[in-house]
Amino acid sequence: MNRFWMLLLVCFSTTALAQQPLPSWHDTASKRAIVAFVNKVTEEGSPDYVEVPDRIAVFDNDGTLWSEQPIYVQLAFALDRVKALAPANPQWQTTQPFEAVLQGDMATVFKGGEAGLMQLVAATHADMTREEFDQTVREWLAQARHPVTGRAYTEMVYQPMLELLDYLRAAGFKTYIVSGGGVDFMRAWAEDVYGVPPEQVIGSSLKSEFVMRDGEPMVVRTPEVGFINDKAGKPVAIDLHIGKRPLMAFGNSDGDFEMLQWVTAGSGPRFGLIVHHTDDVREVAYDRQSKIGRLDRALDAAPSQGWVVVDIKTDWAQVFAHD
Amino acid sequence: MNRFWMLLLVCFSTTALAQQPLPSWHDTASKRAIVAFVNKVTEEGSPDYVEVPDRIAVFDNDGTLWSEQPIYVQLAFALDRVKALAPANPQWQTTQPFEAVLQGDMATVFKGGEAGLMQLVAATHADMTREEFDQTVREWLAQARHPVTGRAYTEMVYQPMLELLDYLRAAGFKTYIVSGGGVDFMRAWAEDVYGVPPEQVIGSSLKSEFVMRDGEPMVVRTPEVGFINDKAGKPVAIDLHIGKRPLMAFGNSDGDFEMLQWVTAGSGPRFGLIVHHTDDVREVAYDRQSKIGRLDRALDAAPSQGWVVVDIKTDWAQVFAHD
Repeated sequence: MNRFWMLLLVCFSTTALAQQPLPSWHDTASKRAIVAFVNKVTEEGSPDYVEVPDRIAVFDNDGTLWSEQPIYVQLAFALDRVKALAPANPQWQTTQPFEAVLQGDMATVFKGGEAGLMQLVAATHADMTREEFDQTVREWLAQARHPVTGRAYTEMVYQPMLELLDYLRAAGFKTYIVSGGGVDFMRAWAEDVYGVPPEQVIGSSLKSEFVMRDGEPMVVRTPEVGFINDKAGKPVAIDLHIGKRPLMAFGNSDGDFEMLQWVTAGSGPRFGLIVHHTDDVREVAYDRQSKIGRLDRALDAAPSQGWVVVDIKTDWAQVFAHD
Repeated sequence: MNRFWMLLLVCFSTTALAQQPLPSWHDTASKRAIVAFVNKVTEEGSPDYVEVPDRIAVFDNDGTLWSEQPIYVQLAFALDRVKALAPANPQWQTTQPFEAVLQGDMATVFKGGEAGLMQLVAATHADMTREEFDQTVREWLAQARHPVTGRAYTEMVYQPMLELLDYLRAAGFKTYIVSGGGVDFMRAWAEDVYGVPPEQVIGSSLKSEFVMRDGEPMVVRTPEVGFINDKAGKPVAIDLHIGKRPLMAFGNSDGDFEMLQWVTAGSGPRFGLIVHHTDDVREVAYDRQSKIGRLDRALDAAPSQGWVVVDIKTDWAQVFAHD
């Protein structure tokens, strides 16, 4: 072989290597299961071929696409907003759970349970239009930093999952986020960070109402909870929003159990995957005992349900883009 | 000019004619307003240029895309289903509003108001999965006939509006249905008839719940009302479902008032249009006094709001494909 041909061969090999899907995934059973599934539903003539309009993949967000430790990003946002809005709300100095937030007493904040957290969300998310709230979230994200890594929260997304989103979209899939997080909070950045447009984000929401303000028609959030998109709420919301049963579901906690169960029980080829946080060096290791993102029941059910369990430690060559 | 060139010219002219947008629309102010708006938001370099992801158009369904006279198609469906399900529900023979339906006593049916109609909807739409309901609707549509024209309901769609949907999609718009009708009812045929996929249909809905039936996970409709997508509910639902304010809105009744108002009050170029049923020869003429599709307040507001009012009699060259 002369040098010209050898060079050409090297070029081709390099190109082929660069085009390998999912480069941040090790070549383990998890990656192979994903690729095999996508191939069998997209290859013309395959007995499991699925038409493009039915190629729908749903992704949980917190702990599946980005880090949820040590606290949910949206909770960090709400806490910061309470501090920012405190001067205009002097009564918060002596009212729980606001008083505890302002004193940095997180034990008391969490003692208030879900009702207390909802109070924080309502006080910091309501009485705004989507556009106003969107702007607030963007400004916060631009300066807020993760309490452990010191990085922007939008850098705390999992590189292998970004590649997976791209890979599925290239294979004709429509990718949706289906998260317990607030739909408005996620829509403010999901398109920039994940390439998922607002209409493909499904989340929890406050009730909204149509009002006239200074002669302008507006849709404004009320402090009342509209929908909690968690557990059994996820399949219900998917069915209402998309009107189809997705082909693939990706989650990381027991909050995704019913979504995984419903998606993978559909007729024809189905795929379920759980991200198991096993890496205490590159990220945080947690599962059955964690208060955030508890993974217990779904981990037990995975083998009998045929769900792929990603072991971050051994399946992911890289966790974050900045690793 | 020799005959070859003349023939060629004729060919080109015919092709150009065939490519004229909206052939079932007369060349009146309404059509010109639509074309002028689409041109100004889609032509590169236009000061009003709008990026493709923000090109969103929302359409009411009953009376805007298909005929709603003499009764809403979904109500005709519910009445037929009561009759079909009557043998399995002998108590209906002596229970209103079912008794009235079975006796063909529509005056009594309507006397029950919205509550009575909701009872009919609940009894004929609940306790089913989307797949089961979808199948029921498809089977009904295949044999049901419009009480006046004797045609299939799916033939009672407005040809000019079908062309408008196609025209907007060709210009990069994403077209949504935003209707007071039931979301599951519309999803069963909206893709076949309008080219609008399930995830772009927004409508009224019953509450659903996630249940296990014979070991199978399912999302089943309950008899409880979840959301009524009418009047002020429409902008609220658009905001929740799409997460953006559309650029164009199309309606035909006061039920579309708030949607038109909110859409056209957005910043930048906006477009609102009302279909006014003025043609008692080719269709039915109705507006301010009609019980179905009443158009009164929105008709008065149209001039000051800048909404285009389509006069079917003079603006549409053709109403139905079969004309």
